[in-house]
Parts: sequence; C-alpha cells; structure tokens
Amino acid sequence: MQEIIYKPIGIIHTPFNAPTGIPIQSSGGKGISGTIEIEPEYIPCLKDLDGFSHIILIYHLHLSKGYNSEVKPFMDKTLRGVFATRAPKRPNPIGISVVKLRKVRGGILYIKDLDIIDGTPLLDIKPYVPTVDAFKTEQIGWLTNKVDKMKKKQADKRFL
Amino acid sequence: MQEIIYKPIGIIHTPFNAPTGIPIQSSGGKGISGTIEIEPEYIPCLKDLDGFSHIILIYHLHLSKGYNSEVKPFMDKTLRGVFATRAPKRPNPIGISVVKLRKVRGGILYIKDLDIIDGTPLLDIKPYVPTVDAFKTEQIGWLTNKVDKMKKKQADKRFL
Repeated sequence: MQEIIYKPIGIIHTPFNAPTGIPIQSSGGKGISGTIEIEPEYIPCLKDLDGFSHIILIYHLHLSKGYNSEVKPFMDKTLRGVFATRAPKRPNPIGISVVKLRKVRGGILYIKDLDIIDGTPLLDIKPYVPTVDAFKTEQIGWLTNKVDKMKKKQADKRFL
Repeated sequence: MQEIIYKPIGIIHTPFNAPTGIPIQSSGGKGISGTIEIEPEYIPCLKDLDGFSHIILIYHLHLSKGYNSEVKPFMDKTLRGVFATRAPKRPNPIGISVVKLRKVRGGILYIKDLDIIDGTPLLDIKPYVPTVDAFKTEQIGWLTNKVDKMKKKQADKRFL
C-alpha cells in the first residue's frame, strides 16, 4: 500500500530524557510538566486552543525501531498481539496522550501530566471533549484487574 | 523537520462512501457497522485484541487535502484555530476514533459505531481502556454548551 508522509508540527520537551523509568500512560505522569515548541508556520493554528483544559497529542515514537507481532507488555507475563497492547514498538510507531494544557504563549504550549520522552516529534493536536472522547467499555481483555497497576507502572528496557 | 513515513496496516470499510452526511464523531455513528481488512503481514499482531470491547483507530484522512490555519467548525459560526477543532483538513490529516469491536475473524475486524469514510487507510490500533483513556475536563473552550449537538451533527461540504 501507498506510503503516507507526515511532517512534525513541533517538538515535545519533557524531563524524561531516556526511555526507561517514564510512566507508561499519561495518567501515571501526574504532575510532570513540559512544553511543546510549535513550528512558526503552525502558530496561527493554535488560536482558541487555550480554552481547553485537556488536549490530545498525536506523536511519532521516534526512538522506536521495528516491531514484534507479539510482545510481553509492561503489565503482563504472557505474549500478546502488539495491537492488543500499548507497546511503543509498533508497525507504525504512533503515540497518543491526553495531557493537561496549562497555557499557550506564542508558539509554546505549557503542558502537564506527561508520559512522553523529551524530543518527541508532534504530529497533531486535537481538543479533548469527554462527551465524545470518553467511553464506557464492557471488556478490557488481558488488562482486566491490571489497570490500577498500569497507572503507577514505569517503563523498563523491554522495548529498547 | 524530517519527514515521517507510515505504511497503512489495513483498510476501513464503512457504508459512508462520500464525505458529506457522515457523523462528525463516532458517538454520532451509533449502530453503524463496518469492517477493517488487515494486511496479511499484520494479522499475527491482532492476537488478544478480541478481548476488548472498544478499540482506538488511528487513520489517515485520505480525502483531506491541504488545510487552513483557521476554520469554521461544523458546530460553530466563528473562525477557530484548526488545532482547537476536529476538522479533517489539518497540517497532518490524522483521524482517531474509538469504535466498538464486535469480533475478529482472521484478518477481518467487525466494528460498530463509526464516523469514518469507506476506503480509509488504517495506521494503528490500540486497546481502549477507560482507566487510562477517559479524562474529566475543567474546560472545553468554544464547545461549551455545544457538545450535545455534536453527537447528532453530520458533516456538510465545508471541508471538501
């Protein structure tokens, strides 16, 4: 199939400068602050964003090279299909996080509650709206009884 | 900045074969069924996915060409920065939807509650887990008092 080409709209800066020890989900990164440096050409696209307390970041997991079809996730000891996990090594290494937006100053976004590594290229920003973005589920598969731990879990070296 | 290249992992099939008249959010596509045809090489990555009732789809908005920094969103009469909207014409036309996963049969995923156009190239699948993916917000900016309408709204021609 045809290749799809994207261009980063900015760079995410965080205190995490190595892929180990970082929270595996943004809910585990509570209180961690960072910034996003938006490329000058996209600054006009930021208008009105500061009205939202939470934003969705879509980014390129730039340190992730290659993937395995089945992986042992951080929360498990069993091999799982990679699409049934949030492992960073994926066929297309795309990450998503919902983070708190503290303020916008020119081309700099001040964000909080982060699980993202420093220097990550940002692809898109969308406002987060619970009415359309929060869902109730009937089943969470292999993560049943494991989600509470997921919030506290930090990444080890398994996906390096 | 450096270009990022992705390759579709499959194609999404839905009853929506034109970009007008489709729901603008998956919560507005309740009951609409479709399938995803996964490329053979990625079928092993699907293992264990069928345990999840909801999955996150990340896809390329393939009909979207170019963008404007400010747009009038479907729900509004005022120009808003494109990153403060969910408009499909964006610097990187990436879409995300949370959909219901009914079943997986080989390389075919049977999905429901769709706001996606037929033939859309799929980039990634992640399990949806409310504990880490659902957030409460303090502010939803220009969408305040408009989200209930958002569920019912259908796309018109403004982003074609």
